[in-house]
Amino acid sequence: MPGLYITRREIFSASHRLWNPELSEKQNIEMYDKCANPNGHGHNFVLEVTVTGDVKKESGYLMDFKKLKTIIREEIISKVDHKHLNSDVAFLKNVIPTAENLVRAFWQVLEDKINGAKLFSIRLRETENNTVEYRGEE
Amino acid sequence: MPGLYITRREIFSASHRLWNPELSEKQNIEMYDKCANPNGHGHNFVLEVTVTGDVKKESGYLMDFKKLKTIIREEIISKVDHKHLNSDVAFLKNVIPTAENLVRAFWQVLEDKINGAKLFSIRLRETENNTVEYRGEE
Amino acid sequence: MPGLYITRREIFSASHRLWNPELSEKQNIEMYDKCANPNGHGHNFVLEVTVTGDVKKESGYLMDFKKLKTIIREEIISKVDHKHLNSDVAFLKNVIPTAENLVRAFWQVLEDKINGAKLFSIRLRETENNTVEYRGEE
Amino acid sequence: MPGLYITRREIFSASHRLWNPELSEKQNIEMYDKCANPNGHGHNFVLEVTVTGDVKKESGYLMDFKKLKTIIREEIISKVDHKHLNSDVAFLKNVIPTAENLVRAFWQVLEDKINGAKLFSIRLRETENNTVEYRGEE
Amino acid sequence: MPGLYITRREIFSASHRLWNPELSEKQNIEMYDKCANPNGHGHNFVLEVTVTGDVKKESGYLMDFKKLKTIIREEIISKVDHKHLNSDVAFLKNVIPTAENLVRAFWQVLEDKINGAKLFSIRLRETENNTVEYRGEE
Amino acid sequence: MPGLYITRREIFSASHRLWNPELSEKQNIEMYDKCANPNGHGHNFVLEVTVTGDVKKESGYLMDFKKLKTIIREEIISKVDHKHLNSDVAFLKNVIPTAENLVRAFWQVLEDKINGAKLFSIRLRETENNTVEYRGEE
Repeated sequence: MPGLYITRREIFSASHRLWNPELSEKQNIEMYDKCANPNGHGHNFVLEVTVTGDVKKESGYLMDFKKLKTIIREEIISKVDHKHLNSDVAFLKNVIPTAENLVRAFWQVLEDKINGAKLFSIRLRETENNTVEYRGEE
Repeated sequence: MPGLYITRREIFSASHRLWNPELSEKQNIEMYDKCANPNGHGHNFVLEVTVTGDVKKESGYLMDFKKLKTIIREEIISKVDHKHLNSDVAFLKNVIPTAENLVRAFWQVLEDKINGAKLFSIRLRETENNTVEYRGEE
Repeated sequence: MPGLYITRREIFSASHRLWNPELSEKQNIEMYDKCANPNGHGHNFVLEVTVTGDVKKESGYLMDFKKLKTIIREEIISKVDHKHLNSDVAFLKNVIPTAENLVRAFWQVLEDKINGAKLFSIRLRETENNTVEYRGEE
Repeated sequence: MPGLYITRREIFSASHRLWNPELSEKQNIEMYDKCANPNGHGHNFVLEVTVTGDVKKESGYLMDFKKLKTIIREEIISKVDHKHLNSDVAFLKNVIPTAENLVRAFWQVLEDKINGAKLFSIRLRETENNTVEYRGEE
Repeated sequence: MPGLYITRREIFSASHRLWNPELSEKQNIEMYDKCANPNGHGHNFVLEVTVTGDVKKESGYLMDFKKLKTIIREEIISKVDHKHLNSDVAFLKNVIPTAENLVRAFWQVLEDKINGAKLFSIRLRETENNTVEYRGEE
Repeated sequence: MPGLYITRREIFSASHRLWNPELSEKQNIEMYDKCANPNGHGHNFVLEVTVTGDVKKESGYLMDFKKLKTIIREEIISKVDHKHLNSDVAFLKNVIPTAENLVRAFWQVLEDKINGAKLFSIRLRETENNTVEYRGEE
């Protein structure tokens, strides 16, 4: 195992509403409180994607940060930035957009797109106090 | 002039959409680009309110930070946090919620509520790269 | 293993003094230097508590951040914020309040209080340059 | 007026207690709440000192940052870092160590020590939410 | 006076060497110390450009942040990012690239390029402890 | 296993150029893009060194932060701060100074110098968006 990791940070601004359509309004409000506000609310989500792998001797890179940036922007950021996560994003259809569900959905999207390295962790900071991390099924 | 200022930082998470109903869809998209997305998007808005005044000899305070915090939370944060700024906030009715218009509206709300000190500046950081500040008509 | 983690950040402002009563003054000053100042000093301690577990299908939450926040505030923050850690905190009695001892004491307090998830890590940032992390006996 | 400013940031960790000895215990607790805790509490205080002046053609400096750093460290930081502000600092004797009183006391100390430039502002961030600034009598 | 300001933050990574060719090596080393290292050193420079003006009623903008970003990137960032400031930048020819001289040179470049608003301030953070600001000749 | 970690943060300002002398200019530019600029560019590199070990009962320390700081400053910072990493650093001779190669070189330097604790991780933040971490061969 190489023991080497690189992490790329990207930011997107989106809105969402936490609501489980299979539950009653009363249950939703009990569970999600102000996050259930009908018209939604939003965040500057800070996304950190970590990949692991070997250093290539020729380049001294594990993976070119520019390539990692391009993959994240094309596959994730272009689809969620300045969007409403409940209605505007194809790969989030029928997903309750909690931070936990978002990182797992992002993992599905990114896992096969990282060439020459292995996806290790996806962190999502929803506010400066609340962060979620997913490392795949271990 | 006392030359003394205290600044309280508060954060709120809200969504908004930039759209001028008096213009055509084409004009709105030209002007607001992705900020005109019909379902809106959101931010963690960082609000900094600065007041100026004299130090009270008895307390050594210009103004108790707890009082300033309470005023900001009651008058602003409780009304905009986890809300959609276009539809959910009475004092923003008919306001296009750009950062510039938000700080001016917040000024209207706060100006008369600060007792024993004078409102000096309201700053609003919409993203880590974009900040607006209002100091009242000078 | 779910591979999923959520982290809640809280801040408290406290004072402490590093002093081992079983050692001489000379030994204490050699070991703790300016941290042994008789009247103590203080920090804004940044506390990050990470828990791990499965996502609940109904809520899309690993654990409600509001519940995690409430546990941390009731069990830790209310007892250490604006306090002197050597004299004012029952669960720190006879503990030299180094950052290392603090995270281990916080672990004892929190471990059984986290319901529906498992305590994974406690990080404590004493200054912007010095951070301690505890993950329990492994 | 040159319109040019340089700002040096320094950090110190100190404890303090807010207490006016001329008032009763009841009055102090009403005024200072948890900041009146008998054993004190503490912060990582972030100090920012801004000076203004002309650029010297030879050096391209307004004032050498190293010199400004040395002045701040010798005159302020060495005297307040890892100290109790109520009891350990000669220039704070009989001062209630609120942030407002601290910046004004620091101004007294620094004003005549800045050679070849003019002290313009002293900011003190007590927590990430509470900041005080002093610009001298205007 | 409108009392309204917007600030755009941009970052560039560059190297420089502080050296006055009209002085001796001894004088340069006395004045610039480790900043005079022959092969240079570098920073992630944080640039903040503030403009002031009126809100346009139609847009609710003082100035479109996207336009301000484009001007800063075209006129400054594209010319200094990943460059050596002593040798690679036409508008810095014969300028000792201290932070003070950089903000004044950036002002020359930007002043006439800001349309529909007035340049108010340029701040440059060289390290997290050292920041320079220029507001033009006042 | 103790499950306890302490992390020390240090910052250095350096310049570098990414260039593999065994490849053609065309290949270097394809691979390194603007990082191949002949005169180099620079960063404020944020270095975080994490060590693991047991708490010593006498001190309550895993390892004295001051000692860890001294080791990092003597062995790394004094050799790379305000330097050009391609030409000025003996232990980086013949190393292409990518962030990946830097953390591995720092590991070689530090591994045997940490007494009474075990080196666990070295993180290097090149920009606020790009971070590399090395944990040794696992």
